[in-house]
Amino acid sequence: MALVLDNSVLDAILAQVRPLLGQGKVANYIPALAEVPASKLGIAICTVDGGCFTSGDALERFSIQSISKVLSLVLAMDRYEGDEIWRRVGKDPSGQPFNSLVQLELEQGIPRNPFINAGALVVCDMLQSRLSAPRQRMLEFVRMLSGVSDISYDARVARSEFEHSARNAAIAYLMKSFGNFDNDVIGVLQNYFHYCALKMSCLELAKTFLFLANQGRLPDGDRPVISPLQTRQINALMATSGLYENAGEFAWRVGMPGKSGVGGGIVAIVPHEMSIAVWSPELDGAGNSLAGIAVLEILAQNIGRSIF
Amino acid sequence: MALVLDNSVLDAILAQVRPLLGQGKVANYIPALAEVPASKLGIAICTVDGGCFTSGDALERFSIQSISKVLSLVLAMDRYEGDEIWRRVGKDPSGQPFNSLVQLELEQGIPRNPFINAGALVVCDMLQSRLSAPRQRMLEFVRMLSGVSDISYDARVARSEFEHSARNAAIAYLMKSFGNFDNDVIGVLQNYFHYCALKMSCLELAKTFLFLANQGRLPDGDRPVISPLQTRQINALMATSGLYENAGEFAWRVGMPGKSGVGGGIVAIVPHEMSIAVWSPELDGAGNSLAGIAVLEILAQNIGRSIF
Amino acid sequence: MALVLDNSVLDAILAQVRPLLGQGKVANYIPALAEVPASKLGIAICTVDGGCFTSGDALERFSIQSISKVLSLVLAMDRYEGDEIWRRVGKDPSGQPFNSLVQLELEQGIPRNPFINAGALVVCDMLQSRLSAPRQRMLEFVRMLSGVSDISYDARVARSEFEHSARNAAIAYLMKSFGNFDNDVIGVLQNYFHYCALKMSCLELAKTFLFLANQGRLPDGDRPVISPLQTRQINALMATSGLYENAGEFAWRVGMPGKSGVGGGIVAIVPHEMSIAVWSPELDGAGNSLAGIAVLEILAQNIGRSIF
Amino acid sequence: MALVLDNSVLDAILAQVRPLLGQGKVANYIPALAEVPASKLGIAICTVDGGCFTSGDALERFSIQSISKVLSLVLAMDRYEGDEIWRRVGKDPSGQPFNSLVQLELEQGIPRNPFINAGALVVCDMLQSRLSAPRQRMLEFVRMLSGVSDISYDARVARSEFEHSARNAAIAYLMKSFGNFDNDVIGVLQNYFHYCALKMSCLELAKTFLFLANQGRLPDGDRPVISPLQTRQINALMATSGLYENAGEFAWRVGMPGKSGVGGGIVAIVPHEMSIAVWSPELDGAGNSLAGIAVLEILAQNIGRSIF
Repeated sequence: MALVLDNSVLDAILAQVRPLLGQGKVANYIPALAEVPASKLGIAICTVDGGCFTSGDALERFSIQSISKVLSLVLAMDRYEGDEIWRRVGKDPSGQPFNSLVQLELEQGIPRNPFINAGALVVCDMLQSRLSAPRQRMLEFVRMLSGVSDISYDARVARSEFEHSARNAAIAYLMKSFGNFDNDVIGVLQNYFHYCALKMSCLELAKTFLFLANQGRLPDGDRPVISPLQTRQINALMATSGLYENAGEFAWRVGMPGKSGVGGGIVAIVPHEMSIAVWSPELDGAGNSLAGIAVLEILAQNIGRSIF
Repeated sequence: MALVLDNSVLDAILAQVRPLLGQGKVANYIPALAEVPASKLGIAICTVDGGCFTSGDALERFSIQSISKVLSLVLAMDRYEGDEIWRRVGKDPSGQPFNSLVQLELEQGIPRNPFINAGALVVCDMLQSRLSAPRQRMLEFVRMLSGVSDISYDARVARSEFEHSARNAAIAYLMKSFGNFDNDVIGVLQNYFHYCALKMSCLELAKTFLFLANQGRLPDGDRPVISPLQTRQINALMATSGLYENAGEFAWRVGMPGKSGVGGGIVAIVPHEMSIAVWSPELDGAGNSLAGIAVLEILAQNIGRSIF
Repeated sequence: MALVLDNSVLDAILAQVRPLLGQGKVANYIPALAEVPASKLGIAICTVDGGCFTSGDALERFSIQSISKVLSLVLAMDRYEGDEIWRRVGKDPSGQPFNSLVQLELEQGIPRNPFINAGALVVCDMLQSRLSAPRQRMLEFVRMLSGVSDISYDARVARSEFEHSARNAAIAYLMKSFGNFDNDVIGVLQNYFHYCALKMSCLELAKTFLFLANQGRLPDGDRPVISPLQTRQINALMATSGLYENAGEFAWRVGMPGKSGVGGGIVAIVPHEMSIAVWSPELDGAGNSLAGIAVLEILAQNIGRSIF
Repeated sequence: MALVLDNSVLDAILAQVRPLLGQGKVANYIPALAEVPASKLGIAICTVDGGCFTSGDALERFSIQSISKVLSLVLAMDRYEGDEIWRRVGKDPSGQPFNSLVQLELEQGIPRNPFINAGALVVCDMLQSRLSAPRQRMLEFVRMLSGVSDISYDARVARSEFEHSARNAAIAYLMKSFGNFDNDVIGVLQNYFHYCALKMSCLELAKTFLFLANQGRLPDGDRPVISPLQTRQINALMATSGLYENAGEFAWRVGMPGKSGVGGGIVAIVPHEMSIAVWSPELDGAGNSLAGIAVLEILAQNIGRSIF
């Protein structure tokens, strides 16, 4: 089916979804997130042939939070060979809330996948072991992917996350007790929270993640970010574990690999065609953007795109 | 990428995988399954444009076991409207072994998805409530889908399953205690075990499941089995919950929606293109065909097909 | 400290506790229990030197429910040698609700102790294997212990329990799936529910359980029911597992081995001195008689008795 | 039954138990514990009328480890009123290993009792809030109770524990994430590990814990350490939660309130009569001294003492 996309198509979808605003709950575990206006709603789409479309608050930056877990994994897959990563973290859905310690204890400190907190912390621990300046490296990476040179961390968010880091500290120490955490917990948490505190707009996110729709390549570049096989693998992880314990529901409704963050952002991929980023700060019970999922569901139907 | 498929391509893949035989373990919880020769290996592919390709033991019938869970769900989706099914069973990966009661108790008798035992038992309970002859109806359905008129149940397997039904009886009674099971447990178990005891070959399975690669339609028929949207939904469920707790690993390695059974069969779907059925009785630790997954992994690479 | 007991001491305690009535909740999972007047309150004490004291509704019979689990265990300890029982059921607190399957699955079908449902069902299964008429035998046993010849089962309660037996059926089938249940589930459940449906008054209960305060002997008899060592063992089990997940709280407040039932009865033992039975149908959150525990707590303080 | 105790009675018991040495496993998670000779075996008994009896290695100091959890609780009960403590920690058996986080997460950061690690850490957190020098205060307390002025911490053990503190740090941070931990985690852990690193002999332990057999009073003193009611309460906690998940088994075999430590020590109380301390470094599967329990079991039979 030929793709017909323009900004007015996106405007119409946002208008259709806007009545849902008010049904979710903005993340409030730190003040910096709680202050974000609940009514924000934006979408951006970038296609592999170079088009970009936006609607709503698509140019306003927000805290990407767990969406960064995909980026840190990509960085780690660049620095580690073969199964080095996968001996320390699994690839399967957890079936548990993203910050649970129950499964982690029963499974001896090996997180189910890199997109729950425990898994992302292991990935950050691995980056810490191999990168001299993990925070600077991430900034360079995101700026390179997006082509936007002033993307940076929201220092206030990072600080605030760190002040409320007890749960993640518990997760990291539990893994350390099983021998699956090498570096100083505080140091790794600092990096982890900075990654979560990346401030990006929907448009910048769509640009950044376009390589996952383009077999691992930047749209205009020769150099692959990752290989086509790695691209499929990361999309597979996003499809099965990208939306916390609602990966199945998301696949059912939207039918695209995706990754959400508690800042209300979701990125989704139509392989070989486009990357999509939506933003609406109100979350559903599982911690995913309530209106954001609805936008993606309608979009998928309207443009007739689904991996299934 | 143009698809180049013929039987010799499949022969080569089976030859490549055959050394893995001996590394898994044939299901032995009932004698009828334990007796199946471990060395069986077969594959069949049917394409939406009418081609069929086979290699190895593709024409020999085996017990399809949990693959039948997809078929019973399709039957139920035909008889129930909207959310009637989804109020009683979820759509998300369980992150638990297929026959666990732990999550089912914590979540008050609502199974995570229709492809774990608890979920499939709820679906069978629902079929029992609406169909006058659930076993006969399933036979008619499979024969219609496959175009093979003598597909039937292996009565010895069904009887043997029933004699070892304590675990599934526990699951059904636990759901009954939460009000999520309407009919007599024994009667529903009888049907459930018959469905699991369907005896089909790889070729028959590939034919039967082709509608999931064809937007819900039989290849040569006008009448849709299910709608295109329902087709995507079922493929989504298979992709996130089709291989017990290894759905993520399967997506990573193979990149297709799939459903496995402890008889050693796996069906996989390339949407819009083809259905695939593989068979090798030896299972890995999660209960999936060890060599079967390997066949699908190599096939996916060789023909360049993945939903991701 | 010399014991000063008479009926007026008990009257005073009941008067002190009566204001608590209304704060608990009568068991309502079967109609026959739900109909019991919430305001019933009674106590009976029997001493090893032959005295009996009562107050309130001490002569009115009620459903002893889980208190029967002690009696079935005593019967089994009479029929099985050494560790035969303890290979199939543990002796430790479960830390879980009395009807949970979670721990039972994780621990491969071996219940933590004989006073949770799973453990009592194993004990009933063992009685079924060795007794030709388990229900008749239990009646004879209770009549012998109490000296009351018309104690019997409440057939309506037993029938009603059986009609709501799904949860216990699930427990029994789960144990069967692990090889820890030998007889037909339905048959064992029938006996189990009859034992629970024994109808006895506080006075009859105090008489029945006096042997546990008397080193295993009937007060006037030569023949021991069980040995002094077995008596201490059963009291130990009651102290650590007799009040569902609140054994610690009960030990803290009351300081006596005890066993409760959802009919609102509790029996408690002061070793070498007396047996106590209280009854108040309203239950606390853990399923124990709310006012009954309060009666025992005040009694323990007033008469200066505690095993600690 | 009149008590006949002398050192030769104890010698005979140790001789009887000595063949069990070799069947357990010395704690080896830190070098300082792993180095303790496995063959050590000692017992000391102090009676409320002033007698003391010893046998074996009863005068050699060892690391008391979790036995200190009783002492820190007593200190806290002296500094906090009414339910202040019990709003933050429960009184019931956990049914879980002593260092598990599973239950702690499910129960929102409230530990089941003060004798599992989580509960003891909460108690230490509370001491930190009210005591200016918690370590010095504990030393003074133990020296006062025992009458031995040179009892002190094993600095090497404390340091080594701290170096392997990841699991306990995880527990503390998890409680902090639920708002049930007020002070700096590192600081509290330092105190906690020092308490565990108290070095005492069996004789010193028996002297120290004699107040629990003496209604809360020192044998020769007027001043109560705690009230008679508090004494019964602590004994009740020890009886239901003092031996990790084997409290029921210990009650069954020994019939006394007790508290064990992974250093191989166990203290046990015969209310109104005596305190007992045993030491044998080899542990059973639950982390309790294997031979130590056997010594107590035989002693209980020989002297005819049991709370049941």
